[in-house]
Amino acid sequence: MPDSYVISVDVMGGDHGPDVTIPGIDAVLRRHPNMRVLLHGDEARIAPLLKDYPRLSRRGEIRHAEVAVRMDDKPSQALRKGRRVSSMWKALESVRDGKAAVMVSAGNTGALMAMSMFVLKTMPGIKRPALAAQWPTLNGRSIVLDVGASIGADAEQLVDYAIMGEAMARSLFHMDKPSVGLLNVGVEEIKGVEEVREAGRMLRESRLPVRYVGFVEGTDIATGEVDVIVTEGFAGNIALKTAEGTARLVSQYLKARIQESPLAMLGALLARGAFARLKAKLDPSTNNGAVFLGLNGVVVKSHGGATAEGFANAIEIAVDMAKSNLVEKIAADLAAKQHLLEAAGKA
Amino acid sequence: MPDSYVISVDVMGGDHGPDVTIPGIDAVLRRHPNMRVLLHGDEARIAPLLKDYPRLSRRGEIRHAEVAVRMDDKPSQALRKGRRVSSMWKALESVRDGKAAVMVSAGNTGALMAMSMFVLKTMPGIKRPALAAQWPTLNGRSIVLDVGASIGADAEQLVDYAIMGEAMARSLFHMDKPSVGLLNVGVEEIKGVEEVREAGRMLRESRLPVRYVGFVEGTDIATGEVDVIVTEGFAGNIALKTAEGTARLVSQYLKARIQESPLAMLGALLARGAFARLKAKLDPSTNNGAVFLGLNGVVVKSHGGATAEGFANAIEIAVDMAKSNLVEKIAADLAAKQHLLEAAGKA
Repeated sequence: MPDSYVISVDVMGGDHGPDVTIPGIDAVLRRHPNMRVLLHGDEARIAPLLKDYPRLSRRGEIRHAEVAVRMDDKPSQALRKGRRVSSMWKALESVRDGKAAVMVSAGNTGALMAMSMFVLKTMPGIKRPALAAQWPTLNGRSIVLDVGASIGADAEQLVDYAIMGEAMARSLFHMDKPSVGLLNVGVEEIKGVEEVREAGRMLRESRLPVRYVGFVEGTDIATGEVDVIVTEGFAGNIALKTAEGTARLVSQYLKARIQESPLAMLGALLARGAFARLKAKLDPSTNNGAVFLGLNGVVVKSHGGATAEGFANAIEIAVDMAKSNLVEKIAADLAAKQHLLEAAGKA
Repeated sequence: MPDSYVISVDVMGGDHGPDVTIPGIDAVLRRHPNMRVLLHGDEARIAPLLKDYPRLSRRGEIRHAEVAVRMDDKPSQALRKGRRVSSMWKALESVRDGKAAVMVSAGNTGALMAMSMFVLKTMPGIKRPALAAQWPTLNGRSIVLDVGASIGADAEQLVDYAIMGEAMARSLFHMDKPSVGLLNVGVEEIKGVEEVREAGRMLRESRLPVRYVGFVEGTDIATGEVDVIVTEGFAGNIALKTAEGTARLVSQYLKARIQESPLAMLGALLARGAFARLKAKLDPSTNNGAVFLGLNGVVVKSHGGATAEGFANAIEIAVDMAKSNLVEKIAADLAAKQHLLEAAGKA
């Protein structure tokens, strides 16, 4: 089969486990005839479900795992009881052993991060992975990283995020030269922390093959004018959650005001198509699928509460990454960076 | 006159100067019969305008200043040319000299921060001021600080922010026991930076008179369940700007979808009351007026681009602060903190 590829899925992850992940995977298989799947999880639960999904039965293979990491396990607990025997661990091993291109899980974020580092290890020169999220913008999507995998990135780590996020944008948005900005604050007197300024200098001066456009502010994330926005994980996580909370506030406030007036309710009915598209735009399911970058393998994290449709979107991301050999791209870009920095006498 | 108070205004600040600030101040005077105003700025520009505002002519006093700080001046430039002679500097001096309770400016943020520190100095034990912003929530407003006056707060500075923000909430929201949360990230493995965890411990254990409710995440800011949200300035500035950008994205996206369909446009017309209220809720003018806390005097910063109505909202904040003796409250609370920390052997 030309260009066939395998996705490894932790079928047990997420709030609803196989009841959501199985139909989600099946929906994606329909769109990608060259895709195959390894289904890691409890065979006794998965096998009966597959009877309703003949396509998935044909192109998926169950890999039994005795243990499922729980959503409320601490990473240390998950590692203790899930090492080697959990569906999450085994799904990662399939990537490590070259049997699958990308791993997907809707499981516990902390456990997934810890197990990913154990099983896949970070790439040469990368201390900790970054978590890259997709962000809805006026006319499309952008990528923001790190949204909380690490805390306290230094200048060189921020440059690594720029390189990895740029490679991800090429894969995901099918574009040649995505633009990259560094998230900073706008108060004139201060102009950000030293790490951000130093990372800006490195991106500007070191002739890396990254289209760096300079500092951007929080207001610029949603406009979509920059494809990749780089930030340290604490600020990135707070930005992501604040945007989610704001979108929810706007929707709830408008809904409450509309329900106060019968005329407004009629109006909302007439405009329901526009409201439905806004809802879809902001729905976490639409933008589901954050990616751990900087590991020797690609790991896609779905929201724990994702619906089957949302989980399918995370699998779609995995397909894009698998088709484009993201890890090889990133490894080459990081090696080029090391070379350039050494030539510039900075590393 | 019982309970009269004076507000000191940098009339020249902002994108539009006196054309906006003068009508803004006048609108507030109407609502507060005991309020008087010092109008710092170019007499030749202000005096002719006052002819149209007899109430302001009676209750305001022009204090001529030769220099106006420009919106694009760097703080160092502003200090060089505006020291002692600019409307911004002189308006701050009125507070320092006890002639006014609160200073308001729509001028350049960096210059205002620098001049405030020069003229008013920080309170005992406070290294740098914090900037506290009002945040629209589902059923009201909350206060978030620091939104970018300082960068890299340590644990004790975060505790100071909690104390100052709590005092501001008492003044502004007229409530006895506002709740206070510390902004943190939700990734299980990490649970935030050491400074945030240590500040949490101090707020929990040191029996400060602050109703501390624990860590909150970015999603919690807009719900309004916590009155005061404390964070370090870099993350706070990014959160504020990201929320602004998200609100704009939602409005623009919905508007674009509505304009694609005549039926939806009719619907939007019927629901225009609800849309108008949403617009007002999110309008930066509605929430205009951030407060520099931690100085020997209160300084209110208006958006540079504020309308007269928006500038009036910033002046209203100043009135609340003036009436409640905010600086005295904060000084007492900070002294109590120092005492408690010393008793606990931590300072």
